[in-house]
Amino acid sequence: MKPLPVSPLAPNKKQILTPIAGCRMASRKARIYYDGRCDMLLMAFDPGTTVAGVLTSNQMSSPSINWCRKHLSSGTARGLVVNAGNANSFTGAHGVIACAETAKSAAAVLRCEPKEIMIASTGVIGEPIRYERIIENLPAAQAGLVDDAWEIAAATIMTTDTFAKMASRTAIIHGEAVKINGIAKGSGMIAPNMATTLSFIVTDAKLPSSFLKTLLTRGIERSFNLITVDSDQSTNDMAMMFATCKSGPQNIKISTTKDPALRDFRRQLYDLLHDLAIQVVSDGEGASKLVSVAVSGAASTLAAKRIAMSIANSPLVKTAIAGGDANWGRIVMAVGKSGEKANQDKLSIAIGGIEVASNGMRVESYDESKVANHMNNKNIDIAVDVGVARGRSKVWTCDLTHKYLEINADYRS
Amino acid sequence: MKPLPVSPLAPNKKQILTPIAGCRMASRKARIYYDGRCDMLLMAFDPGTTVAGVLTSNQMSSPSINWCRKHLSSGTARGLVVNAGNANSFTGAHGVIACAETAKSAAAVLRCEPKEIMIASTGVIGEPIRYERIIENLPAAQAGLVDDAWEIAAATIMTTDTFAKMASRTAIIHGEAVKINGIAKGSGMIAPNMATTLSFIVTDAKLPSSFLKTLLTRGIERSFNLITVDSDQSTNDMAMMFATCKSGPQNIKISTTKDPALRDFRRQLYDLLHDLAIQVVSDGEGASKLVSVAVSGAASTLAAKRIAMSIANSPLVKTAIAGGDANWGRIVMAVGKSGEKANQDKLSIAIGGIEVASNGMRVESYDESKVANHMNNKNIDIAVDVGVARGRSKVWTCDLTHKYLEINADYRS
Repeated sequence: MKPLPVSPLAPNKKQILTPIAGCRMASRKARIYYDGRCDMLLMAFDPGTTVAGVLTSNQMSSPSINWCRKHLSSGTARGLVVNAGNANSFTGAHGVIACAETAKSAAAVLRCEPKEIMIASTGVIGEPIRYERIIENLPAAQAGLVDDAWEIAAATIMTTDTFAKMASRTAIIHGEAVKINGIAKGSGMIAPNMATTLSFIVTDAKLPSSFLKTLLTRGIERSFNLITVDSDQSTNDMAMMFATCKSGPQNIKISTTKDPALRDFRRQLYDLLHDLAIQVVSDGEGASKLVSVAVSGAASTLAAKRIAMSIANSPLVKTAIAGGDANWGRIVMAVGKSGEKANQDKLSIAIGGIEVASNGMRVESYDESKVANHMNNKNIDIAVDVGVARGRSKVWTCDLTHKYLEINADYRS
Repeated sequence: MKPLPVSPLAPNKKQILTPIAGCRMASRKARIYYDGRCDMLLMAFDPGTTVAGVLTSNQMSSPSINWCRKHLSSGTARGLVVNAGNANSFTGAHGVIACAETAKSAAAVLRCEPKEIMIASTGVIGEPIRYERIIENLPAAQAGLVDDAWEIAAATIMTTDTFAKMASRTAIIHGEAVKINGIAKGSGMIAPNMATTLSFIVTDAKLPSSFLKTLLTRGIERSFNLITVDSDQSTNDMAMMFATCKSGPQNIKISTTKDPALRDFRRQLYDLLHDLAIQVVSDGEGASKLVSVAVSGAASTLAAKRIAMSIANSPLVKTAIAGGDANWGRIVMAVGKSGEKANQDKLSIAIGGIEVASNGMRVESYDESKVANHMNNKNIDIAVDVGVARGRSKVWTCDLTHKYLEINADYRS
């Protein structure tokens, strides 16, 4: 499998991620994926680092998910081992042993307990993972730990991704600056239901695990759970957030995550998560267009999200967008099949801000050439009002192209 | 838009549909679809014909669906007008008038009441239908009514279909033979939720409308509601069944649809509906392989169906099948994302009868070349046991190919 050309929707400008105190990393070529590229990431955190995670709701969750689910409860972490190329999923007892042995060896090189090691895997499902290759590489990884290799780290966890996904923000807590860095991977098998894709967020702020959990869960709802590439949901999805507690206020009591002191941190974290999520959907397999679907007038926020997802996941809508066809009849169909309440006589649809349908029929006077122009853009905006109440939601997807089929018709070879 | 090459999955042998007493038909070139082909069908039924229908559950249902919903309640029908090329959907008051005017004119030529006329439309959504062209053609259609033009009728209602879908059965009721003929159309925008696609069934048996309704609903559950092409569900789906009451026992009381006298009729009707449904999925847009997905061991029949549909609708599974890749890891993923109960440690998967995974991991010894051979077939069989209880269901789909994208990227031009 050769690397794919970079997505036309990749951000023009890379964000530079600077070191976060208490966090170091190293990438290795462990030959789990194809030869010649880094496919194994070790992250090391100083003692006192807190952690929280949001894990896939796919019932066929991998042993790495189960390992993290079990050990996240302690709320602290010292290390993270991620590999690309093999999901270590549906591999029976072998997969469970792989996790335990990897954690044990990582704990030995980082001088901590195995339960303080988090594990993530991404890649092919059902093939036994050669975890001994990961273990062999751990001492060299430990020896090579540095604090400024974020871009290599982001590239290491990629599978069919065509670019490394990174974001960084600075937030102010009680007048002191703290940092948040995040990396993510994801390209196909992307549909929302808890932390789709892998993403790892690190901050130097001093925050308890319970706060991380709340903030991450809410942030994911506003970001990764609002994107879809193909409606398929991975067995290995996770988002994890680590706080090294090295910077910012050390002795000020913050009572809850709603404390005004965290207002800026919340905002910056949600913005960073949204940024990463948009990067993931911009790298949707074969994507040539980034599509936003905003639904208003629904019975509730959840109803609006379901309608938006019904549109965003419709193969007929996505194929029309790939073909530059403003086929809004298919949007009507997708609204209808969602099963959520919609008032046909009040339904309106705008494409690129131009209203093409209102009150249950097409707008006679709309300028087709303007809509056609918009359809040639890289960014397509669809807005639908279903005329029932005030629920609204906005989701992001990409178009369905020949390249998606090419990438996925023979992924394993 | 040019006609597409015939699907490689089309049945080798056409079924010949012979006349049914009390039922005549005529096709016309009304220029609703593209020039030069029949796109309007008139069917006429003798007085005394009973009727029942199963209509789409899409909330954006077209005026034709609403018209039929209203008038099916009488249980009798004298005529059916179907057009291809325009769905008369999401066209506001114009669409409602189109139905009423068409029914009025058809009633005039057939000498009956407008409420005895059923109406169906299929094609593009959101474009006002030029129903005056249908009305203009009604007198000539009436003058041309014959009892043996089933194949032309089946071809007239096609849109992106590549072959006409027909089926015929003979059933015995109390020792007397009755006939059942059926035609259907459907190729894309096909997902189950009540009578996906258009299908019209006619029998000469003497059966009350209430019986037709029960038998059709149950038959649809076992046929059209078990197929999916692309998970998209039309605004215009309907199945309708007419009984001219001309043949078979005329004076024997049949108490309920469970009456043993109807056993053969039920079996033949269900078999005919299943036949038509398989023809529809065999003509799935761009399909090169017909895929059956059998799920067993589920918590209930409904759970089994949902898991099977999750597999059958997964773009990653469908794309792998198109590429001849027995990527069963994606089947595991699709089982997991269904949300239905499954026991990972007991899960087993067979492809083409060869067990590739069991007890939560791959079968070490399976013969990959045999599986690869099966993947080259036109018919792919997937069987999954989820190891929970005894619920089972089997659904049918097709692969997702480049041709699907070609057909749908610019359908309107």
